[in-house]
Amino acid sequence: MSLFDYDPYARGCASRQLLDRIGDRWTVLLISTLEDGPHRFSELSRRVDGISQKMLTQTLRALEADGLVRRTAYPEIPPRVEYELTALGRSLLEPLQALVSWAREHMGEVQASREDARAG
Amino acid sequence: MSLFDYDPYARGCASRQLLDRIGDRWTVLLISTLEDGPHRFSELSRRVDGISQKMLTQTLRALEADGLVRRTAYPEIPPRVEYELTALGRSLLEPLQALVSWAREHMGEVQASREDARAG
Repeated sequence: MSLFDYDPYARGCASRQLLDRIGDRWTVLLISTLEDGPHRFSELSRRVDGISQKMLTQTLRALEADGLVRRTAYPEIPPRVEYELTALGRSLLEPLQALVSWAREHMGEVQASREDARAG
Repeated sequence: MSLFDYDPYARGCASRQLLDRIGDRWTVLLISTLEDGPHRFSELSRRVDGISQKMLTQTLRALEADGLVRRTAYPEIPPRVEYELTALGRSLLEPLQALVSWAREHMGEVQASREDARAG
């Protein structure tokens, strides 16, 4: 697969929609959370502070359909459902974590610039 | 500045909003386009196929307020306005281009997974 089969600069290319998915705030935080292994829904909900149940459900379903996350239901009582990264999802960790690190490192500069913009 | 002064996992942290900004499809494509030097509005509009004038204006203003892009108006006739990356904007190139490359490289796998999900 060549790098040039898909071009997110082109209006109709599906890779542009994929950029939306992988750049999405909840995707970034969920994929990063799953780095250290399988998690239950309730754990993900706690870790990603403030995500609604509905948004968590929707995002996990989309990540599952995209092949980034695997959902496993264990036939136990009470039922146990776990989410974990697939190999494809794992390949996203490095770029997404670079984004999270950038945001953490440069937030101070961005905020200073925003204050200047408001004052100016 | 420690990496832990800002935490995008925390509901109220400004770095979460920053993740929205830098993960935004148009930000990713515009910042990458500006890698090779200053561009005029019309050039950016052509390069990022399908972006509306309004969205391009809004995104450039937001990037300017965040200190990622510098806007320079040259007092010529007709007036010339150019946009270029600041040093801060340049520091975002590597993480964003990693994201674009990932989307290009793995789009085929994601699409295959989506087809399976629809079929199943």
